[in-house]
Amino acid sequence: MRRPAVTLHDVARASGVSISTASNALAGRGRVAPETRDRVVATAERLEFRPNALARSFVTGRSYTVGILAEHAPGTFSMPVLIGANSALSLSDLASLTYDAQNDPTLRREYLLRMRTRRVDGVIVVGQGPDVVYPSISHSFPVPVVYAYAHSEDPRDTSYQPDNVMAGRLATEHLIATGRTRIAHITAGSTLSAVRDRVSGMSAALAESDLTPAGAPLHGTWRRAWGAEAADRLLASGIEFDAVFAGNDDIAHGVRARLEASGRRIPDDVALVGVDNFNRLTRMEDRSLTTIDLNLPQVGAAAAEHVLAAIAGTAESGSFSVPPTVVPGRSTLGDIVPDDPPND
Amino acid sequence: MRRPAVTLHDVARASGVSISTASNALAGRGRVAPETRDRVVATAERLEFRPNALARSFVTGRSYTVGILAEHAPGTFSMPVLIGANSALSLSDLASLTYDAQNDPTLRREYLLRMRTRRVDGVIVVGQGPDVVYPSISHSFPVPVVYAYAHSEDPRDTSYQPDNVMAGRLATEHLIATGRTRIAHITAGSTLSAVRDRVSGMSAALAESDLTPAGAPLHGTWRRAWGAEAADRLLASGIEFDAVFAGNDDIAHGVRARLEASGRRIPDDVALVGVDNFNRLTRMEDRSLTTIDLNLPQVGAAAAEHVLAAIAGTAESGSFSVPPTVVPGRSTLGDIVPDDPPND
Repeated sequence: MRRPAVTLHDVARASGVSISTASNALAGRGRVAPETRDRVVATAERLEFRPNALARSFVTGRSYTVGILAEHAPGTFSMPVLIGANSALSLSDLASLTYDAQNDPTLRREYLLRMRTRRVDGVIVVGQGPDVVYPSISHSFPVPVVYAYAHSEDPRDTSYQPDNVMAGRLATEHLIATGRTRIAHITAGSTLSAVRDRVSGMSAALAESDLTPAGAPLHGTWRRAWGAEAADRLLASGIEFDAVFAGNDDIAHGVRARLEASGRRIPDDVALVGVDNFNRLTRMEDRSLTTIDLNLPQVGAAAAEHVLAAIAGTAESGSFSVPPTVVPGRSTLGDIVPDDPPND
Repeated sequence: MRRPAVTLHDVARASGVSISTASNALAGRGRVAPETRDRVVATAERLEFRPNALARSFVTGRSYTVGILAEHAPGTFSMPVLIGANSALSLSDLASLTYDAQNDPTLRREYLLRMRTRRVDGVIVVGQGPDVVYPSISHSFPVPVVYAYAHSEDPRDTSYQPDNVMAGRLATEHLIATGRTRIAHITAGSTLSAVRDRVSGMSAALAESDLTPAGAPLHGTWRRAWGAEAADRLLASGIEFDAVFAGNDDIAHGVRARLEASGRRIPDDVALVGVDNFNRLTRMEDRSLTTIDLNLPQVGAAAAEHVLAAIAGTAESGSFSVPPTVVPGRSTLGDIVPDDPPND
């Protein structure tokens, strides 16, 4: 059976103050003596008092609910952004309404309407990365709208993206730090901004170490098959290389398969870094591949925190990026990295 | 600028009835003539009236919010369950509070407290599959609690799981339907119920076609490296086989690499089926591998719909399973399946 929730009345009584004084003390409003405020706050903590959201809503007119509009909710990259946003909101006691527009304008319009009628306190749009420009919906809402893993057509809108320039820089710096000097790059099409940004981060890191790349970047698709084909081309080109920075983990797996088939040892002959950290999302630790984690849950969480700050009136709009992280594995560090634990 | 939300007052005026009649007509309550009800409903639809959740909450005492408690929210298998649950709730106008307990009992206790004080209308526990028994939290809540991709220690609790017996059956039936008769099975450890269930579905499907498996199941881990090692063992054993049912897609990739290295063509010599449909979760269509999709978003959605039905008093508790789906690819059907579209 449920223990009855602690009310403001309980806190006031246990603190020996009136309900309005207790309310002001906890809200940091009105004129309350510091020692009284401290006593009320300590009592509220001891009793595990949590304000009743329903009553709070009715007083403030706020719904304490944020709408999240995804274009493709079950997408590999959307999911961690959504989870990060949901978790960050919940930690601040804001509920969320999550809608999947499925790239359908009719559904998107319906969900925008629902969010308005639910009187959401803010909206997070979860898009499909830096190369899909989202129609700005900010004008439809009198509340803050933030784009996560997305940006809108309106440059005044606030967006949060992973930092792909830094991803390229971190991959390259890690390879240089582990002693590599001839680094090739195998990646997807050069029209993609994620690809261009990673190339530019790589170039900057190489230049700072007075290095040049091992050949021009090889541009293809995000797929394993392209990684294998490009590795063959690289081997056939005669260009010397002691490392490959692969545009994502799938490409890296294709590169690894073909290099190993040709007798190159990883990392002894060629070190290898990917991007995405797909394996680490599972609970099965697989540290065979060094990779760059774009920290997509943090992209969602940062967008959620921006919405919270904007609701409180303390946020500046802008385009923000979330730094990625190097996840070291055996493809650059060798046996220093422990074997994967069994996972049967 | 936001268009002012349509109120019940607007609907009543446009329908030519009183507010209480409009309210009763829309709620299906009280005595309202059928033609009047139809007129009010049509007007509400035309005006795109949506009831104000805040006002509704205050009248009903419900929060129209469901708590979702995950043990490891960013896990590969948790994420699609969470997204499915969130989306299903939102479609029914219920907001959600999503908490990630991170396998920490202190966090779990804190989040249970938060859900209680938020007066959630129901709780969904998102666990870590069939082999992790969850402590029952149902007694802490006077509202419905449903376990998704999880089950609790209390058999009276309601749980939703993917149907792993059917996964094994569907994989095997697909291989038989495409002309295979000597099917080997390479999978993870035999202590796991997902493994045992898939084996038993496979056995049942073989028996119904008067077939026997190509050797005993090879048990190892869920990893690609095990798939490769087991394929080597299978080749060395001399057992004839024309198909491999791999316990998951990672194992299947390891099996494929080693079979192809040994000169076996896929699917001409050996057909291959995995489980998980990891590729399809991305928007990059990769149909090289036939796989079984466990439909994890539907597991979350079904749990959410159970909570909704339980809130309405129309749900029976029980242990439910969600059927998986065959996703055909070139590893069984060959070139009937079109090439992957470019995704640069």
